[in-house]
Amino acid sequence: MAQNRYETAVARYFEAWNAGNAEARAKAVAAAWTEDGGYTDPLAEATGHEAVSALIGAVGERFPGFVFTLTGSVDGHHDIARFSWELGPEGAPAGTAPIAGSDVITLAEDGRIRSVSGFLDRVPEA
Amino acid sequence: MAQNRYETAVARYFEAWNAGNAEARAKAVAAAWTEDGGYTDPLAEATGHEAVSALIGAVGERFPGFVFTLTGSVDGHHDIARFSWELGPEGAPAGTAPIAGSDVITLAEDGRIRSVSGFLDRVPEA
Repeated sequence: MAQNRYETAVARYFEAWNAGNAEARAKAVAAAWTEDGGYTDPLAEATGHEAVSALIGAVGERFPGFVFTLTGSVDGHHDIARFSWELGPEGAPAGTAPIAGSDVITLAEDGRIRSVSGFLDRVPEA
Repeated sequence: MAQNRYETAVARYFEAWNAGNAEARAKAVAAAWTEDGGYTDPLAEATGHEAVSALIGAVGERFPGFVFTLTGSVDGHHDIARFSWELGPEGAPAGTAPIAGSDVITLAEDGRIRSVSGFLDRVPEA
């Protein structure tokens, strides 16, 4: 089934989060975010391709072998969309990842992400 | 318990939605939103106090006697917060309202709302 613009933006977003190395990550971030695009979650805030790439790289180093996966569907309207995700070991059964969250993104005219408002729904117990 | 700035912003937001008349609504909207503040949900988009007031007034006319109520808590960090709400008859038991949704707001320095990204979680069957 063809992706709508919200699903396309979210797919690019996960490509950036799941990129295997710095070069692929920089390329995926540039494809997913506008030049001045931003990202905010409870633990971090970043603006611009370089800062967003660095943030994603740091998360990847903290959780080696983990992948971000979309859970449920992408709910978009006007220039915004919401979706949920989980972060866990690659290949783990859906719903079992130790970390999960929900994001709201705003899109620019060109379909790239202008901002991400990220929240955590499930985190490991301390 | 003292409200944090996210809870204060959300309380002002509900005051605007539940204002009893146009004058009170205009005052509450000005207290809740920045001058160029915006609101977007699947059915409507508005920017600025006048447009936001008009939108809220139109919803009120469509659902006479209904009130917006916060469900759960306000989850805020940096300059953003998320929360859920329901819209139903005043005094109805929690969880029974026919309409429910979730919003993400961004706050300005002065604590007023800069933008609302609204989504619907429950709507009446057509």
